[in-house]
Amino acid sequence: MRTVYHQQLDELTGQLGQMCGLAGVAMKRATQALLDADADAANRVIRDHARIVALRQQAEGKAFALLALQQPVAGELRAVFSAIQILADTERMGALAVHVAEIARREYPQQLLPAEVRECFAGMAKVAIMLGDSAKRVLISRDPQEAARLHEQDDAMDELYRRLFTELIDGEWKHSIPAAVETALLGRFYERFADHAVEVGRRVTFMVTGELPSEDEISAY
Amino acid sequence: MRTVYHQQLDELTGQLGQMCGLAGVAMKRATQALLDADADAANRVIRDHARIVALRQQAEGKAFALLALQQPVAGELRAVFSAIQILADTERMGALAVHVAEIARREYPQQLLPAEVRECFAGMAKVAIMLGDSAKRVLISRDPQEAARLHEQDDAMDELYRRLFTELIDGEWKHSIPAAVETALLGRFYERFADHAVEVGRRVTFMVTGELPSEDEISAY
Repeated sequence: MRTVYHQQLDELTGQLGQMCGLAGVAMKRATQALLDADADAANRVIRDHARIVALRQQAEGKAFALLALQQPVAGELRAVFSAIQILADTERMGALAVHVAEIARREYPQQLLPAEVRECFAGMAKVAIMLGDSAKRVLISRDPQEAARLHEQDDAMDELYRRLFTELIDGEWKHSIPAAVETALLGRFYERFADHAVEVGRRVTFMVTGELPSEDEISAY
Repeated sequence: MRTVYHQQLDELTGQLGQMCGLAGVAMKRATQALLDADADAANRVIRDHARIVALRQQAEGKAFALLALQQPVAGELRAVFSAIQILADTERMGALAVHVAEIARREYPQQLLPAEVRECFAGMAKVAIMLGDSAKRVLISRDPQEAARLHEQDDAMDELYRRLFTELIDGEWKHSIPAAVETALLGRFYERFADHAVEVGRRVTFMVTGELPSEDEISAY
């Protein structure tokens, strides 16, 4: 029975890892759609999101079955408990990539982002993709030290996000109002993607150690 | 033992309901901070968020203990399973109210919102507060019909949110870039607050019926 339990738990965390991986790929393609005005890439992100949603449904069913049939306790219960919480974060990561793709597609064939923020977005995308990948690896390795590093990686996102808003709020924005509004929302989508990846790391830490690392101060931007 | 179980489950859903209630109050005060440039109201929202965070921690511990000690199955397991998922939504509702309060406080003593969108925000706040209250009541009543009505109430939010973005994107925005950016982000915070309340309703429906209502199409704005 324990063997079956561990096999099912590995399948569950494997599915969550797969969702993080797919969300990272989606963010990579969504960024391509945004920076290269590539409508095909945008359409693919939107179409492929169904895979993340399907994986979530499967993983949710598996977590429920594990609780119902195996009635885990202690560390094993913590693992399923954390997995249930991680489900929402990983699906949301995919949904945020879809948001980026939708905005890119709506503006097609126009280049949406002004030149002075393109580098910032390329940087935010790089961090987001790295975080999606780290979250995936941490779900498999369940290494608390690796999980803690997600938080450090997120500092780079916070820095880029602040820089973007300095450009928008304090800077001399020479472009249209719609471009400013869309740039702000897009920035927020990348930043939230990173937050959810960090949250995966926190939950994996709880899974392994029974201690939940404290959250960062929340901030509107 | 069943009696103890039901008492603990009632306490758990009661705490979740309390979190929704507090989030609704926080959104009401944050809106007051925003519309009346009331820094005291903003500070209170930010300070009081600790209560929501503490309740979440308590509720999370209770859900874990319920699974560990009572090992519920079938409908009773569904109830705890749903509660674990609702935890994140209710805390996030509070955090979104904090975001609104933070932006209002940063602009104090200035009036942040241009006259032409104030009515829209008053409307979004009204819907958000109503949804917080509905989510609270649904957690106590566990009535699937009442839960379904949260989705209908959210239609009013979607309509107001669309109107706001029409003003920002297609309209003739006569105000500054920072005001446009903050208006867009603020609008998004109200709309996400409503989404999380609707999600509470979906999870309560699963709790009672074992069927999870389908999600809306996701949309960037």
